[in-house]
Formats: sequence, structure tokens, C-alpha cells
Amino acid sequence: MDLSYDLPKGFVAGTTRAAFKKADRDDLGIIFSNEPCVLAALFTQNIFAAAPVIIDRQILASGIPVRAIVGNSGQANACTGEQGLKNCQLIQKKTAQTLGIKSDEVLVISTGVIGAQFDMAKWEIALPRAIEDLGKKDAAGFTGAIMTTDSFPKYNSVTFDTAEGPIKLTVMAKGAGMICPNMATMLCVCLTDAQIQRDLWQPIFNRAVQKTFNRITVDGDTSTNDTILGLANGASNINLEKYLNAFEQALTEILAQVAYLLVKDGEGASKVLHIKVTGAENIDTAKAAARAVGNSQLVKTAIYGGDANWGRIITAVGYSGIKIDPAQVSLTLCGIRRFNQGQPINDDQEPVLAEMLKRNDIDIEIILGSGPGEYTLLASDLGHEYVTLNSDYRS
Amino acid sequence: MDLSYDLPKGFVAGTTRAAFKKADRDDLGIIFSNEPCVLAALFTQNIFAAAPVIIDRQILASGIPVRAIVGNSGQANACTGEQGLKNCQLIQKKTAQTLGIKSDEVLVISTGVIGAQFDMAKWEIALPRAIEDLGKKDAAGFTGAIMTTDSFPKYNSVTFDTAEGPIKLTVMAKGAGMICPNMATMLCVCLTDAQIQRDLWQPIFNRAVQKTFNRITVDGDTSTNDTILGLANGASNINLEKYLNAFEQALTEILAQVAYLLVKDGEGASKVLHIKVTGAENIDTAKAAARAVGNSQLVKTAIYGGDANWGRIITAVGYSGIKIDPAQVSLTLCGIRRFNQGQPINDDQEPVLAEMLKRNDIDIEIILGSGPGEYTLLASDLGHEYVTLNSDYRS
Repeated sequence: MDLSYDLPKGFVAGTTRAAFKKADRDDLGIIFSNEPCVLAALFTQNIFAAAPVIIDRQILASGIPVRAIVGNSGQANACTGEQGLKNCQLIQKKTAQTLGIKSDEVLVISTGVIGAQFDMAKWEIALPRAIEDLGKKDAAGFTGAIMTTDSFPKYNSVTFDTAEGPIKLTVMAKGAGMICPNMATMLCVCLTDAQIQRDLWQPIFNRAVQKTFNRITVDGDTSTNDTILGLANGASNINLEKYLNAFEQALTEILAQVAYLLVKDGEGASKVLHIKVTGAENIDTAKAAARAVGNSQLVKTAIYGGDANWGRIITAVGYSGIKIDPAQVSLTLCGIRRFNQGQPINDDQEPVLAEMLKRNDIDIEIILGSGPGEYTLLASDLGHEYVTLNSDYRS
Repeated sequence: MDLSYDLPKGFVAGTTRAAFKKADRDDLGIIFSNEPCVLAALFTQNIFAAAPVIIDRQILASGIPVRAIVGNSGQANACTGEQGLKNCQLIQKKTAQTLGIKSDEVLVISTGVIGAQFDMAKWEIALPRAIEDLGKKDAAGFTGAIMTTDSFPKYNSVTFDTAEGPIKLTVMAKGAGMICPNMATMLCVCLTDAQIQRDLWQPIFNRAVQKTFNRITVDGDTSTNDTILGLANGASNINLEKYLNAFEQALTEILAQVAYLLVKDGEGASKVLHIKVTGAENIDTAKAAARAVGNSQLVKTAIYGGDANWGRIITAVGYSGIKIDPAQVSLTLCGIRRFNQGQPINDDQEPVLAEMLKRNDIDIEIILGSGPGEYTLLASDLGHEYVTLNSDYRS
């Protein structure tokens, strides 16, 4: 498996500095495919879906192959009503005209402040410049253009060898938060030069996202803009039908790596909590317990402070709404058992634990009983940097 | 209505310094009633109910009149298994022996670190001292003994005049968090010298708590120890039967005042968010929306920073899980409309709003549609002081 960071065959990227919010870096990026692409996608569950989400959803539903993605940071184009939809459609139209394609072959992804309308004069100037730049940027360049509070760009590529030759898969994501980001928003673009049918691509995509992006949380806030797009342009001339399982595994792995990076770079985050719940009645029970722990402000601040205050973890499980027998519950923090079948363990391991809590990755294992249900959630901690970043994001 | 801060007729209080955790203030308090008291009570919904909660619940269920309350800070006696229950029972027994009453006439309320066992040697020494102190402390004294991270004691009394003479009601509470505190825990004791039957007292109590304490949140974490006790000893010789409605109103009012103080003194909180949801399909829908907003880290940090980032409020409503039509939703922040029936308002009111956001009480009004459902939630903001306090609570 060869790791490289350029785009799959037939895809090109370009970016420019439109200065939508800040003028110190590129904030508009375009991906273009020489061939029509089979699209798979997943979007936010938030009722106030942003204008680009509404439009991308329509494209996905239509089943039409797509050719381009326009991405921007600075404004999310969410809660912007009719005007927001019109602006988004205008962006599609301008892009399509310049590229010589159709408007509904252009996907749009946006992130930034909610409620502010686009400055369309800036778009008019910037769009042709970004299109002119096509072919001059790589995955890092495109990812950089859609960053907001991210402190580093998140992308990864994998070349997948088949008997017929190589297939490439590139994943580019932004978001200092997810599954529950808000202003930060999770945006992710997956490009591949594999040939794949639409009715095979979407289910693979769903399962991979379910096991990766849908199992992380930074702040419990689900964005209006969360979008993950998968574009397969077939430029490798290799049909995936024979390699579906292996490809799904590779996709899941690469999405898991990028999802981990999102949590690691969670807004103001210093640590990644690996919350594993086992022995649950079923996966839903395990999930509810893991999410209560991963979204608990008290758990997150304790881990931030390196405090082995495991009672807060048990408390979160206790109010998660699931039905369990307290006497069956055990808890291991950094591999050290602190609560065993309903009884606390107060021993001489505290200094060892204090040392382990200084690490960047913190393992929390919760055993609810003897059921088959399991769930693992990655969560960030909650520290001063989070407060600083989020108390003055707009200004 | 005369406000004074001593206890109702027939109740006495005493405290002492047991040094359960810190040695700089009293941390053990006792309330004793000369007459048997009719008990009403509500407890945490957390599955990992603390030992004192388990024991108090049994007393409530038995219907036996009670005589005393033992309260402590320092350890919560939660997640302490069999040993925790035995220790709690021993405290009941020692208290009852010294006071010449029965063990099951003694209620216990505890707050502090979860998972740590009591040092019973300290209890052996401190309990007789606290009992000896009975009659020497007032509401402020008892409340002070059960404080943890509280920065001031919360209590209030009201004298309620009837044709037959005065009835007194005193409320003493602790908790820098609730409905969802954790280590902080909400504990509340309501004492009255009114005469009231058990089957009338509990429903009045339930309704008053539902409208007050159950409508506040600091951090979304529901404690293992939350307890609110209502003791009516009848020492006024005035039967409440004729004054039920007026008394319920007075109780609700005084609990609302104390509940507001809990949020105002929320751990590290600087502001109180008054989140009012109207026009909902029903009260549950209104509640879900209000709670999503009140527990959103992004909303809480924005308000902390005085940032009029109203998009975060709408986003929280959007992921609250309720079914609404985005085009019907409006939002008013500090009385200024920012979102009107699905359309953003971007006008020259920003400087006015920035000034209003410097206040300590912030009004957020969300109109979901034209339904009859309403709900108001008080929530604290989320700032650096919260992180500081909670990242090193144990140490």
C-alpha cells in the first residue's frame, strides 16, 4: 500500500484567495473531473440544513453524474433563507458556464459563520481565478482552502493494487469538530478513479462513514453543513465489482485515519478519548453510553486536567438513559481497572494513572454487562483553548 | 410577605468541621425536628444513585415520618458499592442513637467526590459534635456545611400569613450545577412548620420542582446524588388544607428564586441564559429545543464571549431531534430579532446587541411556530473559570 498525496487519475484541483472572511490564505477551492463521476454522499441530520446541503441532496437524489465541487470557508451559507439558496445556485451556474458543464453537475460545500449572506461580488471575481488555477493544486491545497479553525489540513491517499492495475483513493476533510461540529463543520471529499456503479458505491460509503465519521465527537453540536461526498470517475478503467470487499476495507481504514485527525485537531483539543463500550445489550445501548461519556463536559475537563476522576465517567453512563444493572458495570481507565462490577477500586495505582493521563490518547473502557453490544467513540477533551477559540470565533 | 433567614418553628440546625476533604470550613450539618415530619422528596434519575439516595428513597417509600437530616460535603458516597451503603446506615444509626430516635427517621444527603469511601473514624468524632451544636446554627450555617464548589450559600425563607397565624417555609440548597450537575450535585432541603398530609405534600412538591429545579442546567451532567427533601413538622399547628393553592404558589416562587441562584453560581459561570421556547407543538417539543440550546457548548461559549453568534442557537434547535418547519422559526436575542421565519436579519443592530450581551442575564427567545407548547430553561454560560474549576476538582 503506497501512500502519496496527489489526486486520483482524472481529477484536478485549484484554489484562490477570495477573502470571504480573512485575507491571509486561500479560502475557495475547486475540484474538477475530466470524466462524469458516480456520486455517493451523506449529509447532516440538522433540520436547518445549509443551502449547499439542500442543493447537493437534490443532485444526489437525481442520480445525475457530477463533474465538479466548489468549496469555501468563511461563510457557511446556513440559516440564510431564500437568498442563500439563490446565491448557491448562482455559484453553480457561474462555475458550470466557465467549465462548460451543466449547473447540476456542480456540487457546493461551505463552512464558516452561520447566518451571514455571501458577498457575491467577491465570488464573481474569485471563481474564474480558482478555475484558472485547476491542475496547479494537490490534496493539501484544496483542503487548506476549506479550513476554518483547523490547525492543520487533513487528507490521505491510498493506492490500491488490483490484478488489472492500481486504483487510487484520496480523502480530504476539514473540521475541528464532528459528528457534532457546528460553526466548524465537517466537510469531507473522497475521490477515486475506480469504476463503480451508483447502487454499489452508496452502500459501501454509508457503512464506512457509519464506522468512522459517525463515531467521533468534539463538542456534541451537529452542524448545519456536515457533508461527505464520494466521487468515482472511473479513469483507472478498473471496475471495482471484483474488489468490493477489499476496497470497502481500504475506504473504512482511510476514513478512520482522517476521522481520528479531526478529533485530534478538535477545536482547542489536546487529547483524544478512545471510549470503548462492551458487554451492552445491543449496539444502540453501547452507543448511548459512549456518547453520554464523550459529550460530558465534566469528563472532558477532567481528562484535560489529567484528573483520574473516573466517577464522572460512571455518572455519565448512569444518566445516558439506558437500562443497566449498576452491579454489572466495570470501568478501566488507561488499562487500569477503577470500578469493578459496581464496586470502586481505591488502590496504589493512582500515581501510575496520573502519569498515563499525561498522554495524548486516553483509553476508556466501559463494560456494561455480558451482552454482545459494542461501540467505540472518539472524543476530544475540553480545555481553555476550546473556550478561547469559541468565545470569540466571529469577531 | 416577610423574608427572614431563620428556620421554621420546631427545627434546629447544627454543624461541625469534620475535615472530610478540606479543613478550612464546616462540612457536616444536621437538621433536627422536635416533631415527626411528613416527608416529600425527589431524587436523581441517574442509574448509579448514591448510597444516601438509595436509603432516602426507602424512607420515602415507607411513608414513615422523619426527624433528622444529616448532610455532608467532601465525599458523595456514590459508586461506593456495598461498603458505601453500610457506611450510610452506620451514620443513620449513630445519629439516631445520640438523638434518641430511630435509624429510619434519619435522612442522609452527601456531595463531593464520587467513588471515594467515607473515613468513618472522622464521622465517629464529628457526628456527636454536630449534634451538640444543634440550635446554634441557622439556614446559612447548614447550607454552608453542604457547599462544595459553591461560591455563596443559597437559602431563602418566606413567612406565609393565614387567618390562623403565620406558616414558615425555609429552603436551603447547594449545587453549582443542576438539573445536570455531577460532582457538584444539587442538594436541597425545604422545611416548613405547616401541617400537611403526606398525600397532599408530595404532589405540591413535585409540581413546584418540575417548574423550577427541573428547568435549570449548568453542564448537562445529571448527578448521582441530586436530592430535594421537603419536611413539614406541623409545629405551627396550622393545617394547610385551606391554603393549598397559595402555599404551592409561594413554594414555587421560593424554589424558583433558589434555582436561579444555583445557575447564577453555576461552576465558573458568569451569565444566566433565560431560554424561552414558544409556539411549539407541545411542551415536550419546546423542552427538547430549550435543552439542546442550554446544553450546547458552542452557544454557552459564545454567550460567555459576548458574541452575538445566533447561528449556533438555531443550529442547536436544528439538531435537537424535534420535527419543525425551518421556515416557521424565529429567534430573538436580548429582545432583538435576528432570525425571522427562516430568514436571517443582518442589520445595524449588532453594536446594540454587543452592548446588551455584556449583561449578566441574557434573554433568548425561540419561536418554533404557532403551537401552544412553551418551556423556559435557565442555563449557565461556559467559560475559562468552568474549565479551571473542573479540570482540577479532585486534586
